[in-house]
Amino acid sequence: MATDANPGYWVGVDLGGTKMLATVYDLDFEPRGRKRRRTKGSEGAESVTARMIRTLQDAVAEAEVEPDQVLGVGVGIPGPIDQAKGVVLEAVNLNWNDLPLVKILREAFDRPIVLLNDVDSGVYGEYRFGAGKSARTVLGIFPGTGIGGGCVYDGQIIRGKRNSCMEIGHIPVSVDGNLCGCGLRGCLEVEASRLAISAEVAKAAYRGEAPTILAEAGTNLSNIRSAVLAKAVEEGDEIVERIIRRAAGYLGKAVATCVHLICPDTIVLGGGMVEAMPKLYVNAVTEAARESVMPSFVDTFKIVAAKLGDDAAVLGAAAWAEKTFGEQ
Amino acid sequence: MATDANPGYWVGVDLGGTKMLATVYDLDFEPRGRKRRRTKGSEGAESVTARMIRTLQDAVAEAEVEPDQVLGVGVGIPGPIDQAKGVVLEAVNLNWNDLPLVKILREAFDRPIVLLNDVDSGVYGEYRFGAGKSARTVLGIFPGTGIGGGCVYDGQIIRGKRNSCMEIGHIPVSVDGNLCGCGLRGCLEVEASRLAISAEVAKAAYRGEAPTILAEAGTNLSNIRSAVLAKAVEEGDEIVERIIRRAAGYLGKAVATCVHLICPDTIVLGGGMVEAMPKLYVNAVTEAARESVMPSFVDTFKIVAAKLGDDAAVLGAAAWAEKTFGEQ
Repeated sequence: MATDANPGYWVGVDLGGTKMLATVYDLDFEPRGRKRRRTKGSEGAESVTARMIRTLQDAVAEAEVEPDQVLGVGVGIPGPIDQAKGVVLEAVNLNWNDLPLVKILREAFDRPIVLLNDVDSGVYGEYRFGAGKSARTVLGIFPGTGIGGGCVYDGQIIRGKRNSCMEIGHIPVSVDGNLCGCGLRGCLEVEASRLAISAEVAKAAYRGEAPTILAEAGTNLSNIRSAVLAKAVEEGDEIVERIIRRAAGYLGKAVATCVHLICPDTIVLGGGMVEAMPKLYVNAVTEAARESVMPSFVDTFKIVAAKLGDDAAVLGAAAWAEKTFGEQ
Repeated sequence: MATDANPGYWVGVDLGGTKMLATVYDLDFEPRGRKRRRTKGSEGAESVTARMIRTLQDAVAEAEVEPDQVLGVGVGIPGPIDQAKGVVLEAVNLNWNDLPLVKILREAFDRPIVLLNDVDSGVYGEYRFGAGKSARTVLGIFPGTGIGGGCVYDGQIIRGKRNSCMEIGHIPVSVDGNLCGCGLRGCLEVEASRLAISAEVAKAAYRGEAPTILAEAGTNLSNIRSAVLAKAVEEGDEIVERIIRRAAGYLGKAVATCVHLICPDTIVLGGGMVEAMPKLYVNAVTEAARESVMPSFVDTFKIVAAKLGDDAAVLGAAAWAEKTFGEQ
């Protein structure tokens, strides 16, 4: 039991497509134990959930904590969830549909467990402990293969009546734009994600305009990742910088729309591309956003790079467990 | 004093550009007394605030209520406000800037007073008592001369750190679109407000394509108001219906963006044009919104016409006073 001398712990779990991470935190959110495992999603839901349980138990053991000292567990999921029912509605990378994850986890680890979307948990982590710390409303945007986003408004994660929300990647930024995987056209994601940038950069490399890219990665989209893009910019592949600035400009326009609708005071940009080129990204997005808002909004927000990296989601999940179970 | 036999009252005030309205409600929000006056904004702030005080006092007297039975007053303002300071930041139609309205009103009527934006108060009224009653998140949109919008998320009016928020009228819906009064291009408001519709309709009338408009209102934008537009549609001015449907389509696209960002379960459309043509508007906006959201969002929202008309803002202001002062 939690006692005065040993008052309890919060656990965060971040389930990703390639790896899972569990961290045990004390009440000051100092890490006390952690465990990382590969997800191996192709082995199926039963295998993945068994690995999640072992990872959770290992982290608790490493922290030298008894399970009943755990006050609650937050689990970040790469897809939409039904928080009230504890069900993962969909996790495309894992091929999960309507999986009653809370029930499954509690059969082996019977503590209070809450699910949240992993982007939401990352934004919540930055809101509580990172780049959005003293903000009232934080909008987090993570351009990667897609573009994820989430918003903490006045301490609450914005979501719909039943499930998760905030599909900033699918707000329109371009008329008659490229066809998006979602079925719409001109979505932010299809114009400005890393995948979109890589495709443009691959074309430029093919045409011979991006020598660093050609030398480092060729014209295969899978190889044109954030670090390569950053290197090409540093080494003077001018077209690469222009392509990234254009994408960041679309992101800035989307930020402006969010500013008009939700009034975030802090916009946190995260993910691999921002980590590789924080200054370029933050400046280009800021410039476009300031140009695209009404004059009276220009000085109402700031755009900053995320601070917590991979820890954001697991910290945010643990803190969300505290928010959910801590005030009862 | 409020007693068990006479437990107290909430007062709502709606300050408009042409008229002001005060209504005294009992704790069940049944109206007990009301007073309406012309605003006469051109006479200056001192005159308008004096008229507001008289209007408030008259409504209280009509309700046969003593001032100290009033638990709180909510005042809807046509412009951005600083709620914490009780200051009207700007009211363009009244030529007000940084007016400490709460202080002024309390000098004559010393009860708890809270300001809110009048669009927000209208949305809050519909959320509490009207078309958004059982919703979790209500987005309200009022196309008129401009396009106002507000959002109640989980019982809270969405707003910025310091002042009001939700400038749905200025999110972009068209690239290289018409120049908006705010300085941006292609804003929803400049493409889809009643003013935008009237301008297109006036052109059509000038070209001889809208005979009902020409007969009823000529080509003067000031005369092409909602009732005339509705009559022209009824009498078969086909171009007028097409122009309205196009504007409603832009509104639907803006709704889709809001759905992707905030997940409202109910979208309430109000204002003169919607009142004059509720079916046409609701259907056209719904169709465009459903086409413009990701497939998984199609069935997550409904679009309905407002129910409370002019009462929405004054009811909402009174209810916001209850929300602000009632739980202390």
